[in-house]
Amino acid sequence: MSERNRIVPRVGMVGGGQLSRMTHQAGIGLGVDFSVLAADPADSAALVCGDVTLGDDRGLDDVLAFAKAHDVVTFDHEHVPEPVLRAVEEAGGLLRPGRDALRFAQDKLRMRTRMAELEAPSPRWRAVTTLDHVTGFAEGAEGEAGTGWPVVLKAARGGYDGKGVWVVDGPEEAREVVDRAAAEEVPLLAEEKVDFSRELAVQVARSPHGQVAVYPVVETVQRGGICHEVIAPAPNLSETKALRAQQLAIEIAQALDVTGVLAVELFETADDVVVNELAMRPHNSGHWSIEGARTSQFEQHLRAVLNLPLGSPRTNAPYTVMANLLGGEDPDVYRRYLHVMAKDPEVKVHFYGKDVRPGRKIGHVTVMGDDHQDLLERARDAAGYLRGDQK
Amino acid sequence: MSERNRIVPRVGMVGGGQLSRMTHQAGIGLGVDFSVLAADPADSAALVCGDVTLGDDRGLDDVLAFAKAHDVVTFDHEHVPEPVLRAVEEAGGLLRPGRDALRFAQDKLRMRTRMAELEAPSPRWRAVTTLDHVTGFAEGAEGEAGTGWPVVLKAARGGYDGKGVWVVDGPEEAREVVDRAAAEEVPLLAEEKVDFSRELAVQVARSPHGQVAVYPVVETVQRGGICHEVIAPAPNLSETKALRAQQLAIEIAQALDVTGVLAVELFETADDVVVNELAMRPHNSGHWSIEGARTSQFEQHLRAVLNLPLGSPRTNAPYTVMANLLGGEDPDVYRRYLHVMAKDPEVKVHFYGKDVRPGRKIGHVTVMGDDHQDLLERARDAAGYLRGDQK
Repeated sequence: MSERNRIVPRVGMVGGGQLSRMTHQAGIGLGVDFSVLAADPADSAALVCGDVTLGDDRGLDDVLAFAKAHDVVTFDHEHVPEPVLRAVEEAGGLLRPGRDALRFAQDKLRMRTRMAELEAPSPRWRAVTTLDHVTGFAEGAEGEAGTGWPVVLKAARGGYDGKGVWVVDGPEEAREVVDRAAAEEVPLLAEEKVDFSRELAVQVARSPHGQVAVYPVVETVQRGGICHEVIAPAPNLSETKALRAQQLAIEIAQALDVTGVLAVELFETADDVVVNELAMRPHNSGHWSIEGARTSQFEQHLRAVLNLPLGSPRTNAPYTVMANLLGGEDPDVYRRYLHVMAKDPEVKVHFYGKDVRPGRKIGHVTVMGDDHQDLLERARDAAGYLRGDQK
Repeated sequence: MSERNRIVPRVGMVGGGQLSRMTHQAGIGLGVDFSVLAADPADSAALVCGDVTLGDDRGLDDVLAFAKAHDVVTFDHEHVPEPVLRAVEEAGGLLRPGRDALRFAQDKLRMRTRMAELEAPSPRWRAVTTLDHVTGFAEGAEGEAGTGWPVVLKAARGGYDGKGVWVVDGPEEAREVVDRAAAEEVPLLAEEKVDFSRELAVQVARSPHGQVAVYPVVETVQRGGICHEVIAPAPNLSETKALRAQQLAIEIAQALDVTGVLAVELFETADDVVVNELAMRPHNSGHWSIEGARTSQFEQHLRAVLNLPLGSPRTNAPYTVMANLLGGEDPDVYRRYLHVMAKDPEVKVHFYGKDVRPGRKIGHVTVMGDDHQDLLERARDAAGYLRGDQK
């Protein structure tokens, strides 16, 4: 074993998607030994990483063997089943985040229960197994006022037909989801549809010995349930709400003993912020930090899971805007890429090495500057052109 | 062949050093298919790159096969012999920069001759094969005034004992170099020792269809013939000299038909700048651009050799300072790394994955901000600590 290998920790990331790909990129600078467990050699990270283990990134045998070969293991997705995580930890594998933290990212019922214990601002919610539960939640039951329709139904884990969230306008629509979920054995919860002005997100990194570094609160622009753009920091967010969101993220990371990056997705309401979702890994809402912050969320995640001192989350520009690249009808995105590069030499394009399919996230673009409206237009323009909106 | 491979060009880099490593890192974002030809699997780039060809990165067979497998081939060093480059081009391999340009980076006599033709500001120089040539150059001969001692002797190609530059104070010292060079068949040139106030460098990228993008002129701080720090941009450089240096770099890139990044190293004199050296690849004096510019020299090199529109060289901060990390006596740099990270969370460390040996370049650090003196101190502090200067 070389000198290099003797002193530098080996970190493995389970899953070969774009989050692993960008974490690999960050790990090159850090000089850590980084490898991925990928299901397919054509996976986004497997295409570029120098150290790839091919295997089932959700299966016990392969995850266990991977953990044994590394000093620390982390994840680019939440899909490793809890029994697998438990078995790996019991066999001495070092998982960061660990199973005790990850289960709150894997199961929305557990997450909501824990948020309630922490008194984190949350939408009203309840577990539902029958249509009566849903109508009672919406219309009132047992002396409790209803939330009114529409109601948001969520799969606590998994989902069906590739979906995990359904906004239902009344009992008819609710019945369809409840019946199908029962048939597929998908546990459901109902959530109040929050009256929000916009969606926000905040990243916090936490290391095993408890150091935290929190990023500015960002605005996420969602359309059709897909994150399209992120503006960092969220324009015109009151300092009160910004601090509230950052403080919440830190408290959640501490309470749940998260190691690595935690992304907290929030709704902004008239006078507060409300917790929507948690992710315990680098997250789409933090991609802006590759260019936009001194330390990207990917480098920060590596530093955190390796228990290294965290880097500065300070921003590099007044605003950074990220737009996701979704595939269009024409697979030849590369030809259009040339036009985007020529039109706006300041736009940074990140491709994930994925085949182009309509609606698929195949990359993102980032642009930095002073005027967030201008940046948003330029990022949308580049993403739209790459998708093939303009001819 | 996948859709991805059909539309994205394949670019190969000859040589597995840190320049390839950092080019790979930039290529991940660009989404190009990048691979390296490395002599050893433990080479800096081979450790991290997903697509490595092992072979002789100076030999005809391996370079030729590598060129045939790629749409375009570029270089992380200038050591591929000219006959090999010619044979590869004659076989249809696309080299960028091409042989016609590279020979000016490979041979200092050709470079000086060409700079004279271009009337680029240069030190006085001449080819020398005998001691008489050197003393005539220093003390005057054939009615021409001498430059005086000391004189700089340079190997036009190669060198001996790992050196290629000797500053000689008189005939005694000159004789030693001339005799040894003759014995080793190393062609020599003599150069006037320029009376400079400091050393500068400038990067320009040029694409095959002639687009150029030039970076700010930087100050390079050399000690013992090794670049220790780079300050970008060079503090207090007059606008006249800055424009002169940038214009020179553009003219040289055009005249020599350079494709990719050209680094021009310069001396600043009382009223001008003087060309010292050329490199036709990403260069140590441009590492600051990874964080410090919208488009790093590595991304720019890839865009240029692929004939893609070039990216913006705009800076991300008033000043960026880079310091090279040299190995010290203690190989356990990683433990000291923790202290550096903890002390200054804004310092970006880049490790090259190399075993630590005293004096060896094993990485670099970068720090951005407003006050170049403060940045220089912090960069030196981090590099010194990592080397083991402090206990």
